[in-house]
Amino acid sequence: MTTTVWTRRHVLGLADFSPSEYDTVLQTAASFREVLSRRTKKVPALQGQVIANLFFEPSTRTRSSFELAAKRLSADTLNFSPGTSSLTKGETILDTAKTYLAMGANMMVIRHRNAGVPQTIAAEMDRLDTRVGILNAGDGQHEHPTQGLLDLFTICCLLNFDYPRLGLLAGKKIAIVGDIIHSRVARSNIWCLTASRAEVHLAAPPTLLPKWFAEIVDEDNSNQDSSSQIPRRQLFIHSDIEPALKDADFVMTLRLQKERMSAHLLPSLREYHQHYGITRDRLKLCKPDVKILHPGPVNRGVEISSDLMDDPQFSLISQQVTNGVAVRMALLYLMGSGSH
Amino acid sequence: MTTTVWTRRHVLGLADFSPSEYDTVLQTAASFREVLSRRTKKVPALQGQVIANLFFEPSTRTRSSFELAAKRLSADTLNFSPGTSSLTKGETILDTAKTYLAMGANMMVIRHRNAGVPQTIAAEMDRLDTRVGILNAGDGQHEHPTQGLLDLFTICCLLNFDYPRLGLLAGKKIAIVGDIIHSRVARSNIWCLTASRAEVHLAAPPTLLPKWFAEIVDEDNSNQDSSSQIPRRQLFIHSDIEPALKDADFVMTLRLQKERMSAHLLPSLREYHQHYGITRDRLKLCKPDVKILHPGPVNRGVEISSDLMDDPQFSLISQQVTNGVAVRMALLYLMGSGSH
Amino acid sequence: MTTTVWTRRHVLGLADFSPSEYDTVLQTAASFREVLSRRTKKVPALQGQVIANLFFEPSTRTRSSFELAAKRLSADTLNFSPGTSSLTKGETILDTAKTYLAMGANMMVIRHRNAGVPQTIAAEMDRLDTRVGILNAGDGQHEHPTQGLLDLFTICCLLNFDYPRLGLLAGKKIAIVGDIIHSRVARSNIWCLTASRAEVHLAAPPTLLPKWFAEIVDEDNSNQDSSSQIPRRQLFIHSDIEPALKDADFVMTLRLQKERMSAHLLPSLREYHQHYGITRDRLKLCKPDVKILHPGPVNRGVEISSDLMDDPQFSLISQQVTNGVAVRMALLYLMGSGSH
Repeated sequence: MTTTVWTRRHVLGLADFSPSEYDTVLQTAASFREVLSRRTKKVPALQGQVIANLFFEPSTRTRSSFELAAKRLSADTLNFSPGTSSLTKGETILDTAKTYLAMGANMMVIRHRNAGVPQTIAAEMDRLDTRVGILNAGDGQHEHPTQGLLDLFTICCLLNFDYPRLGLLAGKKIAIVGDIIHSRVARSNIWCLTASRAEVHLAAPPTLLPKWFAEIVDEDNSNQDSSSQIPRRQLFIHSDIEPALKDADFVMTLRLQKERMSAHLLPSLREYHQHYGITRDRLKLCKPDVKILHPGPVNRGVEISSDLMDDPQFSLISQQVTNGVAVRMALLYLMGSGSH
Repeated sequence: MTTTVWTRRHVLGLADFSPSEYDTVLQTAASFREVLSRRTKKVPALQGQVIANLFFEPSTRTRSSFELAAKRLSADTLNFSPGTSSLTKGETILDTAKTYLAMGANMMVIRHRNAGVPQTIAAEMDRLDTRVGILNAGDGQHEHPTQGLLDLFTICCLLNFDYPRLGLLAGKKIAIVGDIIHSRVARSNIWCLTASRAEVHLAAPPTLLPKWFAEIVDEDNSNQDSSSQIPRRQLFIHSDIEPALKDADFVMTLRLQKERMSAHLLPSLREYHQHYGITRDRLKLCKPDVKILHPGPVNRGVEISSDLMDDPQFSLISQQVTNGVAVRMALLYLMGSGSH
Repeated sequence: MTTTVWTRRHVLGLADFSPSEYDTVLQTAASFREVLSRRTKKVPALQGQVIANLFFEPSTRTRSSFELAAKRLSADTLNFSPGTSSLTKGETILDTAKTYLAMGANMMVIRHRNAGVPQTIAAEMDRLDTRVGILNAGDGQHEHPTQGLLDLFTICCLLNFDYPRLGLLAGKKIAIVGDIIHSRVARSNIWCLTASRAEVHLAAPPTLLPKWFAEIVDEDNSNQDSSSQIPRRQLFIHSDIEPALKDADFVMTLRLQKERMSAHLLPSLREYHQHYGITRDRLKLCKPDVKILHPGPVNRGVEISSDLMDDPQFSLISQQVTNGVAVRMALLYLMGSGSH
């Protein structure tokens, strides 16, 4: 493993993450996973620091995970709730962020329904020469880096519990199935999973499949100078699920937003399940010890058959949630240890 | 007093509470009441533990009471707010609970408008072989055990401040007045108050009176084998208030849900107050040192006349709120001390 | 500086603040500002104390500032959210406050859209002989004392960073521009800024200008007995902005509530900006080193031109937010140190 000193102030996306950064996150998360297994699960690492959770788009599960990660690190948290906010009073998002900066926030966790908001806030924080770190908790259809990293961590821990690292993915086949085109989760996962020598196969109905994504990756591959540590990215796109599942080591199903139906991108949930749902039958195409991931919340019987979701032989879903706290602790810790 | 080791993982209702369990809660609450009288009111009992407050039905006062109880025990809390939750995204309640389990919650405090939800979650937690404790904070019209226990504690403390115990209720007469049929508070109180040798008298308009409750108690009485520690339950039902109040030691008035009017179960609030409201005049029927309880929030001038509510000679209402924190600390402590 | 022992249990408004009380707050805030500059920003001053934030009118920025101030002092906080509250169940505001009192709150921070609510609650707390302190976080159009004090602190720190005190304002000219008549911020600022020998000049469209305010101040001046420590208050009222800005040392712009337009008190935001907006051109009327304050949130391009708001040479806006935490810590500390 290449260990590096962490120099990244913000975590906005995984498109430009280096292999050594992935490994640093994986190793740090592993050490926090160990902390969480102790009786007293707190460390004083971020005592006195303030983490502002600015969830312009509401989310209970992700906010709770970040809040718990912050508390385990002994940081104080401030929760911004859009319903009762100054935004309705005409304040700009940047002014809201600057208000939390002025109050003393050391880091801000940002979720927004528009792509690019965390980036804009991070740029403003840098322009003002603050040392505040911005962590993207999901921006539009762009990226959801902590979800990508926790999925990566979950997969790597399965491959080597004690020493999770990017290199373990080499030669593995990972299928990502579902509403790829609208999914920030898919996007972040594609960046991190293709950063190793893994094969990533996307499968979706043609209306939900991003043809251009393969082109971006191609461009990324051809732009690589000799110093890049990322191997040639291996991304394959299918409109049928079968070739994606064939001999897969991991299957990642994505949440189907029900509003896709009203936009006429999908005929019905039942038909979706019939053609792209993960079932025991379909799973026979994969490697015998295949594992299933889902970022949650799950529509039972749509993306995945209900009994399969609960089968610990196949489902990694609750491990993903558990690992989410450790991965978020790792990021807050790495970002925060430079900020004072 | 029979002291026992606490073996109950979940507290879902009081129907099956044993006298020694009541006494354990009362004694533990008394010791936390003592902690709360100190300058620094915290104890490190649950340090590092996470308590998730899953209030699917919103409630500020009960949630605040649980939150404060958790903080006094040095636990961390996670609040689930239904308005911004994954539920609106189609997740099942069990999946929400399992998400908080996977995040590391050690106990969950559940409120839901449907009866049985805490029981279902508790059963699932046991099925998954977790050690997570479930505490019912009110489920539909079924039970509200912490309210029942804090009412019991408040009554017992009045009878013997230093040594509150179930046995003190022997021979006391307690009137419960109001919307009995829809009240989870009444139900939990009936179970705990009849577990001693107290007489419990229910009074309500016929439309709000559960005729079948006496039958349940009868059945419970006749099912008793010789090993049961619960004496024959003494429950009496009246559609006039006077016989219930006659020589009562305690009067418990219940909150009147205004939606009962629209359901045509009640003519008007004014008529309700005229026939069932607690007034100084009606109080003359009771013992001279009678005390009044109300679970709150109170509709002043409906369930009870406004001046009587504020009269410390009669009203135990604010003591109930104060004792609520101590009783909830006791339950979280008893449930939590076995979970690590 | 006159130092006095702090004897005020509640902080409800600044109308009756004495010079020595102002100085005590300023000095205490300065020492907390120093605490906030340290690596670990917490002090154990209010450990074990509970501060209830009862924001009947929602506000994210002020609530966050109070919450952070409380956490920095190691107090526990309870947040009351009106949306999910017992109020919708018919409980009175006083009963809500008494519930938090009974739960163990040591101080309550109250915001309400009606003037006088914090005063009513404070009177009830005193009547009940509690030692609970009430802090007004904004009541209707009446007062917003912590905003007034943080503005005062910001101005005084600029005049003497190490030793901020009321006397520094003597001879300074301060313009307050905007919707004076509806502004609790203006009102609190007028009381505190005229408590020294500063000249305060109000400027607003005639429809937003309180003619009676000068009369109140006159009466206050003529009522002064010889023992009053407040010098003759110097307050001037203008319906044009120019005489107010002329040679001003500080310009305080007020937030323009957009609902004033629908009430026909203002023609349009553009016309308001044209006549009363703070621009670089208008600033030439002031002293060369003039500074601008705004309580936030700002309507950019309405009360103040957008570039000026971000210009650190003129704008004190983010310092106001920063100082808000120190001033609120000071008040909670002063009020809280007597309550146990």
